[in-house]
Amino acid sequence: MRIDVLTLFPEMFDGVFAASILGKARDKGVVSLNTVNFRDYANNKHNTVDDYPYGGGGGMVLQAEPIFSAVEALQAAENSGVNPPRVILMCPQGETFSQRKAEELSREEHLIFVCGHYEGYDERIREHLVTDELSIGDYVLTGGELPAMVIIDSVVRLLPGALGNETSAVTDSFSTGLLEYPHYTRPVEFRGWRVPDILLSGHHANIAQWRRQQALWRTWQKRPDLLENFPLTEKDKRWLEEQQHKSQSENE
Amino acid sequence: MRIDVLTLFPEMFDGVFAASILGKARDKGVVSLNTVNFRDYANNKHNTVDDYPYGGGGGMVLQAEPIFSAVEALQAAENSGVNPPRVILMCPQGETFSQRKAEELSREEHLIFVCGHYEGYDERIREHLVTDELSIGDYVLTGGELPAMVIIDSVVRLLPGALGNETSAVTDSFSTGLLEYPHYTRPVEFRGWRVPDILLSGHHANIAQWRRQQALWRTWQKRPDLLENFPLTEKDKRWLEEQQHKSQSENE
Repeated sequence: MRIDVLTLFPEMFDGVFAASILGKARDKGVVSLNTVNFRDYANNKHNTVDDYPYGGGGGMVLQAEPIFSAVEALQAAENSGVNPPRVILMCPQGETFSQRKAEELSREEHLIFVCGHYEGYDERIREHLVTDELSIGDYVLTGGELPAMVIIDSVVRLLPGALGNETSAVTDSFSTGLLEYPHYTRPVEFRGWRVPDILLSGHHANIAQWRRQQALWRTWQKRPDLLENFPLTEKDKRWLEEQQHKSQSENE
Repeated sequence: MRIDVLTLFPEMFDGVFAASILGKARDKGVVSLNTVNFRDYANNKHNTVDDYPYGGGGGMVLQAEPIFSAVEALQAAENSGVNPPRVILMCPQGETFSQRKAEELSREEHLIFVCGHYEGYDERIREHLVTDELSIGDYVLTGGELPAMVIIDSVVRLLPGALGNETSAVTDSFSTGLLEYPHYTRPVEFRGWRVPDILLSGHHANIAQWRRQQALWRTWQKRPDLLENFPLTEKDKRWLEEQQHKSQSENE
């Protein structure tokens, strides 16, 4: 996969693209990660890429032309792939990013991210250039750079060959659809707090059942919305109801 | 405000902490941003900070002791503030981060972020050390580093003195509770696509009304959930209903 990021702050990406899974995936040739400063596509001698908004008001607006020119240069690149690239605008009004969207994007050959910073975008970029508008959540950020990094991390880790063995296990635990059960490692006792006896018992079936029940209970307490689409067994349901009764009587 | 980040990948933060609002806020003394490699607090000669999980299974688990030691060293720091620091664990099962949480955190004196990477956390960290568990959204990431950067950006921009004039206008547009209206800047015509005439009319009242209606319509189309708590005027409601009728008859 090829990933290009249009940004006025390419230096923000250096440390993130070099480290960990992204750095390794890049070294292994699983993904090519590039930043493009679209100021290089400015059409004036002052190299400005934004201007005042028509109709007045505060703030600056990113001009259409430099972004169109930069994206079109990338679309024409040799290894852009057979299918046209997805052009993804990072913006607060975009669709909220999700794991399903990560999976969808991981099947593409070429992704181009467009990151604004402070400014708004000229509407013609939105209407005539981009294929996707994405937001990572309902909070205000300074620019699209951090959201682009978040999406790139979540997409690249899904590419075949990106993950080593050390991480695949963690990924698997998400695919259960439940929050993770509690983990413990050495020492058995730390400042008087002990690891639950069952984890030291060596009884694998009991441990597996305890973990499943903990994951269920934690999901029910913290994220009941995740259980709506989760296939609970009759045994799960009975156990959850018992826990709810217990927890209610403890609170009374 | 003082912000410390516990991470095994401090180099990921360099570019992000130096650029833009975060870099300027740091230079102006609005915030002190530090990374701490908690491997420095490992209690063994191999400098490992994770170990196998009790009860078996794949993946590694971050040990309690190095994280407790690192956090306690930071809690004892001279400029930690009068109130005890918030200790924030980045984890997928945490509360989903929101603008309200950003505002809450921006009123603190000292934040400590704990970032895991691949591994799970020993449960005793969760139970006895952290004050908050946060997630930035429902997608799988490699570690807590990018989520910590996202939260830090959203919190620091709320600190008095962090934003220059260039950005405050954009922030204001969020506080309306609606998605932003379309922006346009020069040229008036780009590849045959023209700026709407009303924005060139110089009639400020009409422009203001057009923008409000565009913001309403866009919010209604893309994020109707935001309108649930938005105080619509009777005029707004009538206008929205008209648009809905129009848009339905266009689709028939």
